[in-house]
Amino acid sequence: MNYFSSEFKLGILGGGQLGKMMLYNTRKFDIQTYVLDPSDEAPSKMACNAFSKGDLMDFDTVYNFGKQVDVLTFEIENVNVDALEKLESEGVKVYPSSKNLRTIQNKAKQKLFYLDRNLPTSEFSRFAYASEIEDAILNGGIKFPFVWKSAQFGYDGTGVKVVRSMDDLKGLPKGECIAEELIDFKNELAVIVARNPDGEIKTYPVVEMEFHPEANQVEYVICPARIPEDIAKKAQEVALKVSKAFNHVGLLAVEMFQTQDDEILINEVAPRPHNSGHQTIEASYTSQFEQHIRAILNLPLGKTDSKVGGIMVNLVGAENYTGDVVYKNIAKIMKMEGVTPHIYGKKQTRPFRKMGHVTIVNKDLNVARQIAEKVKNTIKVISK
Amino acid sequence: MNYFSSEFKLGILGGGQLGKMMLYNTRKFDIQTYVLDPSDEAPSKMACNAFSKGDLMDFDTVYNFGKQVDVLTFEIENVNVDALEKLESEGVKVYPSSKNLRTIQNKAKQKLFYLDRNLPTSEFSRFAYASEIEDAILNGGIKFPFVWKSAQFGYDGTGVKVVRSMDDLKGLPKGECIAEELIDFKNELAVIVARNPDGEIKTYPVVEMEFHPEANQVEYVICPARIPEDIAKKAQEVALKVSKAFNHVGLLAVEMFQTQDDEILINEVAPRPHNSGHQTIEASYTSQFEQHIRAILNLPLGKTDSKVGGIMVNLVGAENYTGDVVYKNIAKIMKMEGVTPHIYGKKQTRPFRKMGHVTIVNKDLNVARQIAEKVKNTIKVISK
Repeated sequence: MNYFSSEFKLGILGGGQLGKMMLYNTRKFDIQTYVLDPSDEAPSKMACNAFSKGDLMDFDTVYNFGKQVDVLTFEIENVNVDALEKLESEGVKVYPSSKNLRTIQNKAKQKLFYLDRNLPTSEFSRFAYASEIEDAILNGGIKFPFVWKSAQFGYDGTGVKVVRSMDDLKGLPKGECIAEELIDFKNELAVIVARNPDGEIKTYPVVEMEFHPEANQVEYVICPARIPEDIAKKAQEVALKVSKAFNHVGLLAVEMFQTQDDEILINEVAPRPHNSGHQTIEASYTSQFEQHIRAILNLPLGKTDSKVGGIMVNLVGAENYTGDVVYKNIAKIMKMEGVTPHIYGKKQTRPFRKMGHVTIVNKDLNVARQIAEKVKNTIKVISK
Repeated sequence: MNYFSSEFKLGILGGGQLGKMMLYNTRKFDIQTYVLDPSDEAPSKMACNAFSKGDLMDFDTVYNFGKQVDVLTFEIENVNVDALEKLESEGVKVYPSSKNLRTIQNKAKQKLFYLDRNLPTSEFSRFAYASEIEDAILNGGIKFPFVWKSAQFGYDGTGVKVVRSMDDLKGLPKGECIAEELIDFKNELAVIVARNPDGEIKTYPVVEMEFHPEANQVEYVICPARIPEDIAKKAQEVALKVSKAFNHVGLLAVEMFQTQDDEILINEVAPRPHNSGHQTIEASYTSQFEQHIRAILNLPLGKTDSKVGGIMVNLVGAENYTGDVVYKNIAKIMKMEGVTPHIYGKKQTRPFRKMGHVTIVNKDLNVARQIAEKVKNTIKVISK
């Protein structure tokens, strides 16, 4: 297949920010792109050749959309997997595969996948219904504290809760879930692995999520992670094992815990460009978005080394502000060295809504970290 | 003016490759964009909020387009300057200014501008009609060899000819022109200067155009130029003087000759992102396109240092091939370290047509130079 020809067509399910970033890289290679998204205001709408509005969970919509393209990928996991499976059986190249997506979409299945393959992950119990958790506690099957996770569609903190008492169980959704050991980790790490259909594999450097000491929220993604070399090597090896187990095509972002005993445990994976890789746009030889496109098109993978140290700060809506968004002090942060804001173009802000991110790059990672803190303390996402 | 609000509108005259690259950076800042271009197939069409088809040289078309926006810029010099002037007088911010564009559009005026301000440039004579050149030669006013340049609209090698005998004068266009001293230069250099309305100024490193030893064609743009530090400093200083003389807003690409005696002479300028700055996308902290947007929006300018060494290779149509384009061996060059192709999306190739460019980055500029040569010898822009 000649990807650099007007006959070739790439489809993307989901027209959000990640899809938009992928699309910029398809432009560089002059690839024809088709996007499906439920919203008329999808950021990708103005960056693709053809935009279709439709429900990503609807079999017919996804199937009919997929039939027009040669390679189909997605920027979001909540898509109709049965349609992907049928498309695959009819010769459309779907990357990542429906099989992997099925495993990843369900957190219980994902955990069992690691367990079955002897891949290191925290202990857990699966429950068909949340009501079974209480019995398990009373029987001594599980102990407080633990992490409750909804098996389906839990993203970005929703569908996850730390349970410390019977009281915390109240009001949880009733469906399939897991109860996971609460890990007292030293660091939360991530490695993005790229793989193409020919089997070429490359890993990005290990990144570290730095948490706010009190709020317990990720404040910075730091590349490379400030950890000893042997720990970084271990994390890379675990990520590669996960990659090999999935035999994926495209990116696989592997989130891991470094425990107090320096064990590496797999937390979860995402089969696409990921929040832990946004700094690659400015810091790496090849951005995660270009790499994803290279991988699914079976092109040679790009160099994953960093040119400079990179730090990513999420831009979320400030508390107590809802309405038309204002980026207060954005010019002030643009004055700081090596700072690039990425505004996602959402018109309305609300508390903790993800509105963009800021990358800070510097040859000296410690200087970048200092500037990142200034950025964090300067810019505010508020309303008019 | 709050640029990060949905009320603000940016207009771009010209929807070609340079405009497209600007637009990607407006997306990062979520800026509303309007584009005017004569072609329905303009690359920018799918990257802006609103596209208008129309003649860039027509007064009414440019004026009416400009009235809708708050800031107006251009990616090509061939636009109606009278319309820009009227728009300025009515409060639209036009960057670069109509006054500068008028000077730059006409090569005779541009040369006189340097002469009047004591800025170093090669000697020249201006002629209202090409027919006057012959008389000047017979009178001993000018001597062979010299460079004939059409005063109007000479871009990318058209409108320029080295004249070594009376015979070479035959068939030249009849209009206003200049005869310029032929400079026996050691190097052709360029510096891109950015300036915002507040007067903040930043310069990019000096780049060098490496010529093919026989074909006398630019083969590589190399950043930074491999020249002694004092020469680089001198070139930076000349570029800054030119920048101050124009008092421009936006980018000013200053092309210069380094003579055999290490004098720096101004060749010509372009008031926009430039071919000599494409490597900034991968090599610099701030790409020339982001910098142009920052400058015309009066935002703080980004850091102009390089993260790594960068080399740009133009992708032009191979001789003897005309028709539907094929990028032969593109996957092979993508396998090489630090190589990113940029395909412009033109469907048809013809000999020497500019179809894209390739950037090669590496911490070691000499290694980048070796890879650039491999790239040049591997990829071929041919037809089906």
